Amino acid sequence: MVVHLVRYELDERAWWGVLDGDVISPLSGYYPHTADLIERGHDDWTAAAATPGSVPLADVEPLSPVTTPCRVMCQGANYRQHAIESGMNPDERAFNLFFDKTDAAVTGPESPVTRPAHVTLLDYEIELALVLRRTVDAPTTITVENLHEYVFGVTVANDLSARDVQLPQGQFLKGKSYRGFCPLGPVLAVLEPDDFGLLDDLELRLDVNGSLRQTDNTANMLYRPAETLTELTEFCNISPGDVLLTGTPHGIVAGSPPAVIRRLATALLPEHKLWAAFVKLNQRKPYLKPGDVVTASIRNAAGTLDLGTQRTTIVAPTT
Amino acid sequence: MVVHLVRYELDERAWWGVLDGDVISPLSGYYPHTADLIERGHDDWTAAAATPGSVPLADVEPLSPVTTPCRVMCQGANYRQHAIESGMNPDERAFNLFFDKTDAAVTGPESPVTRPAHVTLLDYEIELALVLRRTVDAPTTITVENLHEYVFGVTVANDLSARDVQLPQGQFLKGKSYRGFCPLGPVLAVLEPDDFGLLDDLELRLDVNGSLRQTDNTANMLYRPAETLTELTEFCNISPGDVLLTGTPHGIVAGSPPAVIRRLATALLPEHKLWAAFVKLNQRKPYLKPGDVVTASIRNAAGTLDLGTQRTTIVAPTT
Repeated sequence: MVVHLVRYELDERAWWGVLDGDVISPLSGYYPHTADLIERGHDDWTAAAATPGSVPLADVEPLSPVTTPCRVMCQGANYRQHAIESGMNPDERAFNLFFDKTDAAVTGPESPVTRPAHVTLLDYEIELALVLRRTVDAPTTITVENLHEYVFGVTVANDLSARDVQLPQGQFLKGKSYRGFCPLGPVLAVLEPDDFGLLDDLELRLDVNGSLRQTDNTANMLYRPAETLTELTEFCNISPGDVLLTGTPHGIVAGSPPAVIRRLATALLPEHKLWAAFVKLNQRKPYLKPGDVVTASIRNAAGTLDLGTQRTTIVAPTT
Repeated sequence: MVVHLVRYELDERAWWGVLDGDVISPLSGYYPHTADLIERGHDDWTAAAATPGSVPLADVEPLSPVTTPCRVMCQGANYRQHAIESGMNPDERAFNLFFDKTDAAVTGPESPVTRPAHVTLLDYEIELALVLRRTVDAPTTITVENLHEYVFGVTVANDLSARDVQLPQGQFLKGKSYRGFCPLGPVLAVLEPDDFGLLDDLELRLDVNGSLRQTDNTANMLYRPAETLTELTEFCNISPGDVLLTGTPHGIVAGSPPAVIRRLATALLPEHKLWAAFVKLNQRKPYLKPGDVVTASIRNAAGTLDLGTQRTTIVAPTT
């Protein structure tokens, strides 16, 4: 059975607890890093899950259930409709697309996020994040059968992206890693081996100011966790508490013009003029601006796996 | 005065020592991670530097002076001539280009490197690597005056790159992070505040099978360490022992056709055909193949800062 954990601040200390409805049963141990919880928290959360909750969720400040330092690995264009809206043909592409964010981006599920002064095209990307369980430092074959040995649980991620840095400058890393650009949480759902089938039927939903922007189901994921982690270990080490963001569905603000238009524009315009035109055209679109509130949730229809709702307010830089 | 440290294996243990000519004076302490050496090694290497060497360099197995886990941050197109050969106009580009490698790529300065079975366009990139000194978790202004508080020393890096993954798939991270794709060392030169001026006049040289491929001087670097680290802290945390690779000079195997040809080809060919043509044309070029030996060295003309010679043999995968 899935155990729904939250990490939160109360009386100037970080705690872990089991969430049941809107009350928390605190764990008794101290786990400063997610890796500590993974390594020695099992009996503690099992006991807490059997205890009636005593802390109202509304009384605490939720924290990212993933602590830093950690690796934040990502998959791109991993839902069919999103690949198409990004200007790719999923039937022609024959590879899993990887990139990463720095852990400077990691922030809490209700923390405000600053839109940097030079960024105007700030976009959202809801993603299912896998929280990884164990050290891997060599190529490793991970299967549906042994996936539970490598994945500890799942949480909600928002892969916030400054499109005016990422695309015109070809800087995925920088455009996706400004401080606060990776809200994580609120719930870290710990999975038992029998729970992994639930990952194939989770509903993702992201709203901006209460209006629906993204909705899809993990059933539509192209490259799935076991094969993705297998490939990842060819070129990436894993430590307990690292995360893998498994890609966003369609509905982002940035879209790509049809291929024929892109090719014509590329032939006719020098690169800097091409991107200046891209930025100008995109100014009309509903990118995130200070004051906007992004809510993001992932759960299954039965409610047996519910990662809660992330609530991110975009703010202007303090001057 | 610069202290030239090496890390090496002898009698199944990893040691640090001060290199003087071709003999090593071992440090007495145990520093499993580079961060341990940075934190508490100063008196030890000062004492060792004053002691005649007792271990011949030829008798030991050199190790990477940067231990993992660590961040491997990189600058792209940071030498003028290399930017041009990569198809960019350095006078039009107005930004410092960042990307990263995973630490799975880190390997020793004489370790053989496997060319993965599916890679045919394996390229080299000699780079000056800064080894970073202290924790940074907020935007920080780093200047020429306080650079020594943030940079511990320098070493040689080779940013090995599978161009047939990096470019056609747009996967910088994966194409540059296969295991072994970041040889580091042999020498970690520890810099005192007065030594930092030496970084502005270092000669880089890379040969393949004894034939010169890359040579340039750090005087021709575009974005220099202090301004680069300042910008890096906007979107990246730093821990002691992390590295920043400062970009490669011209002379890599992959080049870019003139802009007019690129634009025409982009207009006329669908993307997958464009990249198939790229790979086919590039097969004729002298990319690295099993059996090739890459040597890479960085030093100043006076010999007061000498990072030694990295020697990397490319090998085929074991089947």
